[in-house]
Amino acid sequence: MDLIEEIKKRSVHVDKGIEEYLPIDKPYELYKAARYLPDAGGKRLRPATVILAAEAVGSDLETVLPAAVAVELVHNFTLVHDDIMDRDDIRRGMPAVHVKWGEAGAILAGDTLYSKAFEILTHASGDPERILKCIDILSKTCRDICEGQWMDVEFESRTDVTKEEYLEMIEKKTGVLYAASMEIGAILGGASEEVADAFYECGRLIGIAFQIYDDVIDMTTPEEVLGKVRGSDLMEGKKTLIAIHALNKGVELKIFGKGEATTEEINEAVHQLEEAGSIDYVRDLALSYVAKGKELLDVVEESEAKTILLAIADYMITRSY
Amino acid sequence: MDLIEEIKKRSVHVDKGIEEYLPIDKPYELYKAARYLPDAGGKRLRPATVILAAEAVGSDLETVLPAAVAVELVHNFTLVHDDIMDRDDIRRGMPAVHVKWGEAGAILAGDTLYSKAFEILTHASGDPERILKCIDILSKTCRDICEGQWMDVEFESRTDVTKEEYLEMIEKKTGVLYAASMEIGAILGGASEEVADAFYECGRLIGIAFQIYDDVIDMTTPEEVLGKVRGSDLMEGKKTLIAIHALNKGVELKIFGKGEATTEEINEAVHQLEEAGSIDYVRDLALSYVAKGKELLDVVEESEAKTILLAIADYMITRSY
Repeated sequence: MDLIEEIKKRSVHVDKGIEEYLPIDKPYELYKAARYLPDAGGKRLRPATVILAAEAVGSDLETVLPAAVAVELVHNFTLVHDDIMDRDDIRRGMPAVHVKWGEAGAILAGDTLYSKAFEILTHASGDPERILKCIDILSKTCRDICEGQWMDVEFESRTDVTKEEYLEMIEKKTGVLYAASMEIGAILGGASEEVADAFYECGRLIGIAFQIYDDVIDMTTPEEVLGKVRGSDLMEGKKTLIAIHALNKGVELKIFGKGEATTEEINEAVHQLEEAGSIDYVRDLALSYVAKGKELLDVVEESEAKTILLAIADYMITRSY
Repeated sequence: MDLIEEIKKRSVHVDKGIEEYLPIDKPYELYKAARYLPDAGGKRLRPATVILAAEAVGSDLETVLPAAVAVELVHNFTLVHDDIMDRDDIRRGMPAVHVKWGEAGAILAGDTLYSKAFEILTHASGDPERILKCIDILSKTCRDICEGQWMDVEFESRTDVTKEEYLEMIEKKTGVLYAASMEIGAILGGASEEVADAFYECGRLIGIAFQIYDDVIDMTTPEEVLGKVRGSDLMEGKKTLIAIHALNKGVELKIFGKGEATTEEINEAVHQLEEAGSIDYVRDLALSYVAKGKELLDVVEESEAKTILLAIADYMITRSY
C-alpha cells in the first residue's frame, strides 16, 4: 500500500471541496486571503483522517466530505492566526497571510475560515443529532486549540515549564484536532459511541506523537531535507520536550536561546542531547503514544481504511520532515 | 412601559448565563481576557432581542437563554478583534483587550469567545433541526461581519465610496447580527418560517438604522453626553453616510480627516452639513428603516414582548448616545 497515494486519492476531493464550499466571492480580496493558505496545499492529513475514519466504520467519502473540508479550514484558521502571534512570516514556503494582506487582513481571513468551517459542517448530510454532536466537538476543539496556543505563548517567558505542562500544551495545540478528525469521521459515518470514543483517543495519541516527533526531526534531519537549519528550536530557546528533559538532567546547552550558532556548535549540542538520552527519550515516548493509538483501532474490523489509518499512525514517527 | 427596565429584566439572566456558560477556567488569564469585555457590560440589546423575539412568538427566556448568550459572545468577539484592527485602545471606557493582554492575547480571547458561542448554541434545548438552522444563521452572520469589517478597513483608503457600498458595509457589520438575533429567537421559540423570515428582515432594518443613526449622534450630541468630542468621525475622515452625502453635494469640509479641530471649526462643519441637508437625510433614512422594520412585526399578534421590540426599534433612532 502506497500511503501517499492513498491520501492523495482522498485529498483531491478535499481540494475540490474547498473550491466548492469556499468560493472566492465579494469582497474578493478577503476570500483570496482566506483561500491562500488552504490552496497552498499541505499534507491534508486531517481531512484524510476524517474520511478514512468514516470509511473504517463502513461509510464513505461523500458522506463526510463537508466535515473533512471543515476540519481542514479550522486547521488553516489556526495557522493564519498563530503566524500573526508568533511573527512567523513564512508558511508553506510562501509569505504568511499577514505579510501579504497585513495583520487586519489576516485576522479577518482567519475569522472567515473559521465561520465557514461551521457553516459547512452545518450542511453535512445525515442525522441532525449526529451533526450537532460534531459541531459540539469541533467548537470545543477550537477552544482547546486557543488554550494550547495561549500556553505556548506563555511558556516563552517561563523557564520552569514541566513535562506535564508541555504535553498538555501540545495535546491541545495538535492532539485534539486529530482526535476530532477521527471522532467526527466516525460519528458521521454512523459509528457507535464506543467506536467514536476509541477513535477520538486514537487521534489524540497520534496527534501528540506527531507533535513531539517534530522536536526529534528538528534535531536529526539535515538542513537540505528539513528546509531549515537543524537545531533551530534550541537556538530559539523553545521549551520542547527534548530541551525540558535535558535541562532537568542538568545539561548545559550553549546555543539554547542564542538565536544563532555555528554548525560545530549545533553538532555539539545535538551530541550533548544524545549523550543525555533526551532525543531517545522523546522518540520512545512518541513511539509509545503511537503504539497505544494503534491498539485502539482494534475496536473496528480489518479494512483497507483501517490499514491506511494504521500506516498514518506509523508515518507520524517515521517521517523525516 | 420602561424600556430600560424591560431590557434589564432579561439582561440579568444573560449576565448570569455568561458566568455559567463561560466560566473562568485554566488557563485563567485566557478566560479572564475572554470575559473582560462581556463582563464590562454594554447595553445587551442583542441578547435581549433574542429573548424578546422568542417571547413574541409564544416561547420564553429559558428556552433561548443559551442562544442569547451565544449572540452576545459573538458580538463581543467582533469588538475584540475589531479593536485590534482599528487600533481602538478604549472600549466601554476601559483599556481594550489588546491593551491589557497584548495583541496575541486579544486574538486568542476573541477566538475563544467565538468557539464558546458555537459550543453554547449547540447545547440549546429544542429540536435539533432548529438548532442546526440557528448555527447555520450564526456562522453565516459571522462571515457577513468579517466581510463588513473588511469593507470598512478598505474604505479608509478610498475616496469614492458610494452610498450603496456604505449601506452594504453597515448592513454586514451591524444589521445582520440584529437580524440573526431576531430570527434565532423566533426559530428556537418555535415560529414558522414566515415569521422567522419577517423577524430577520425586521432585525436587519433596525440594525442598519442603529448604525446610521450613530453618525447622526456623532454630529448632534454634546461632548458631555457622548463621552467623546462631537464630529470625531469627520475629523478622522470616516466615510459615514453623512460625509458621503455632503461630499456628493460638493460640500467642502475643512476639518475632514484633519485629526483635530477647534470647537468653532466643528460647529462650522456641523452647520455646513445641516445646510446641505446631510444630517436630515441620514436621520430620515434611519427613520424609514425603523418604520419598515416595525411594520414587519405585524406578522405576530400583540404581546408585551412585541411592544418592547417596537420600543427597541424606536430607541434606535431616539437615543442620544
